[in-house]
Amino acid sequence: MVKAAARQPVPVRRADAERNIAAILEAGTRLLSADPTASVADIAKAAGVGRVTLYGHFPSREALVDAVLDHAVGMADAVLEDESIDTAPAPEAMAGLLRSSWEILDRHRRLFLAADRVLATERIREHHEAPLRRVERLIERGRRDGDFRGDLPLPWLVTAFFSIIHSAAQEREVGRLAPEEVEEVLIKTMSSLLLPPAAAS
Amino acid sequence: MVKAAARQPVPVRRADAERNIAAILEAGTRLLSADPTASVADIAKAAGVGRVTLYGHFPSREALVDAVLDHAVGMADAVLEDESIDTAPAPEAMAGLLRSSWEILDRHRRLFLAADRVLATERIREHHEAPLRRVERLIERGRRDGDFRGDLPLPWLVTAFFSIIHSAAQEREVGRLAPEEVEEVLIKTMSSLLLPPAAAS
Repeated sequence: MVKAAARQPVPVRRADAERNIAAILEAGTRLLSADPTASVADIAKAAGVGRVTLYGHFPSREALVDAVLDHAVGMADAVLEDESIDTAPAPEAMAGLLRSSWEILDRHRRLFLAADRVLATERIREHHEAPLRRVERLIERGRRDGDFRGDLPLPWLVTAFFSIIHSAAQEREVGRLAPEEVEEVLIKTMSSLLLPPAAAS
Repeated sequence: MVKAAARQPVPVRRADAERNIAAILEAGTRLLSADPTASVADIAKAAGVGRVTLYGHFPSREALVDAVLDHAVGMADAVLEDESIDTAPAPEAMAGLLRSSWEILDRHRRLFLAADRVLATERIREHHEAPLRRVERLIERGRRDGDFRGDLPLPWLVTAFFSIIHSAAQEREVGRLAPEEVEEVLIKTMSSLLLPPAAAS
């Protein structure tokens, strides 16, 4: 009994910590998606925790941005889960996947820009492993069905998807792409990259 | 005469400073192109200057990487100057420009990765203004001649070039693209992006 009582505080503290971490990640996603320069102090305040508590979980702004990005991509991937990318013909499914991915990325593009400032691109890509597996699976199916090209390496086509959609976020943020033209530009660009080149000459 | 003598030290100091800066940029280009994690201390040592002198010119590692990238891109652009991209038909000229750009980027890809870790992509792109103007001029000519597509915005096609070639540097560094396949992959990818899509369906 004494031992059990002595242990009592641990789970309580752990539940507190989990609640704080959840609040920090939620506030971080919200604030960084509005302003990529949002400070650690602003995020702590919005999460209702002290800066010391925040730094206890995330020792630097970089670590915080890294965790927030991972959290946001996880939520985005859950949304993509609902997409029926396994049934429609691959080119149609790709247009659908681009549209939903862009809708989510556009809403969080400033969070992506915050990450771009402090993290290596390879690290940002690692956080996108789950959604990029969907992209890979779809391109693979399109190649099997003869809808997509087979003359470029599959990992390269997945990278091109990642790179093109994130470039669009940059371009839209700095004003080189108008918001209303992004979707069409993305679909045309990825179609050109994925359709068999034999048909192109 | 007295006034002139009193002024003497200034130009001497300035010449010293210029020599130090040139040595730091040269050493920075060399070391960061071999190892993207090269430290400020290593670069100071290789340049034959003290750390205090280096920090006097470049107050942070970020500032140093930024200046080294600018220096390296300036040298790269001087090499591209010699390319006859204004005479050959645009698709051929584009293949040539991709080959020379890749040759330079591949040699300095670790410097690019060092920059990618500490600078925003938009900042890295700003440093590439001069070579990207060449890309833009070539795509513009290809569009005028009817060789390249006119249904995607010109700035977007320039961004795609920048983004695709830098993605190749990342992929080659992490081993997802083999060194010997990069050139062909780049040329196929950019051709698909630039050729008129009417021919592709």
